[in-house]
Amino acid sequence: MSDASPRRRGRPARAAGDTAPGARERILETARTEFAERGYDKTSVRGIAKAAGVDPALVHHYFGTKDEVFAAAIEVSFEPALVVPAILDGPREEVGERLARFFVGVWENPATRAPLLAVIRSAVTHEAAATVLRNFVLRRLLERIAAGLAVPDPRLRAELAASQMIGIVILRYVVRVEPLASADPERIVADVAPTLQRYLTEA
Amino acid sequence: MSDASPRRRGRPARAAGDTAPGARERILETARTEFAERGYDKTSVRGIAKAAGVDPALVHHYFGTKDEVFAAAIEVSFEPALVVPAILDGPREEVGERLARFFVGVWENPATRAPLLAVIRSAVTHEAAATVLRNFVLRRLLERIAAGLAVPDPRLRAELAASQMIGIVILRYVVRVEPLASADPERIVADVAPTLQRYLTEA
Repeated sequence: MSDASPRRRGRPARAAGDTAPGARERILETARTEFAERGYDKTSVRGIAKAAGVDPALVHHYFGTKDEVFAAAIEVSFEPALVVPAILDGPREEVGERLARFFVGVWENPATRAPLLAVIRSAVTHEAAATVLRNFVLRRLLERIAAGLAVPDPRLRAELAASQMIGIVILRYVVRVEPLASADPERIVADVAPTLQRYLTEA
Repeated sequence: MSDASPRRRGRPARAAGDTAPGARERILETARTEFAERGYDKTSVRGIAKAAGVDPALVHHYFGTKDEVFAAAIEVSFEPALVVPAILDGPREEVGERLARFFVGVWENPATRAPLLAVIRSAVTHEAAATVLRNFVLRRLLERIAAGLAVPDPRLRAELAASQMIGIVILRYVVRVEPLASADPERIVADVAPTLQRYLTEA
């Protein structure tokens, strides 16, 4: 095979489409699938580029390091710039319910659940994924919510709220214990909302 | 080297001590160390036997399968036959606090924390360890507590209580987010006790 032959498999040759509009979205979508299917550790920038049909340099250009690609891939699910104000907007005594409903909604949707499962699984065993969890979910989402409520100890409150949600994730979506795994999502919202409310707003 | 030469390394020759009183405890102690240091998956009955200086058949004789060795090794920390009545004994409105204090005590003690960390880490990624978590911690400890309180849905309540405790374990002891990781144990008890109380006793 000469260098000039079309390469349908392996690392694709650079194409005009690499920098076309849509390449960024395609990389993100591919990254989500790769992280979800292969796990955090076995996913590489090179692998994402290959699956998306772009040059690895383009992935670095748009997103930076693997951790940053990952953060961007899960940010699609969360969109903290939209989510934080939406959760803060409304009666203060219902912020726990709004957060619980958002949380359950993200996890009940298979498209957003899969990449999050990958980071949760990896965070428990690998420092790099733990850092993503720490920096992204805690700092960018929950701490901003706690800060928006103007309560003392916003970081500790954010972590306590996160602890309850992570525990539900582990038992309902990862280990799948019954009856929790099959419980109606609204039941989970009703059970967890008062816990989040207390952590976020009470003394 | 002839077969008769003393083997100081590798699988030890059978010794009179194999079935002496103390062998069972030595196996258990070794199992806890092995599970803690090597993780659930990389620990084998053969490896435990070797490290304890006994024949693998003796490990099987005392405990059965690897899962059963593991359950016995963590049962040493929990002793459900003692713990369940102790947590149920006392004012009903303080059962959440008694459970929270027991939970934090087990996790603050490095000797009991290490083997539990191994199962939590593995439970998130491996079905066998998840089953141990499910059968042991949930069924033998938390469900008995919920059943002792004579409330509806004891299994779901046990799982909700477990979810809060597992989330604290992940963020405080595994991922070690700050300030949660360095918070005073009594602060954790105070924060988590009302959550456990509500899950275990309220509608």
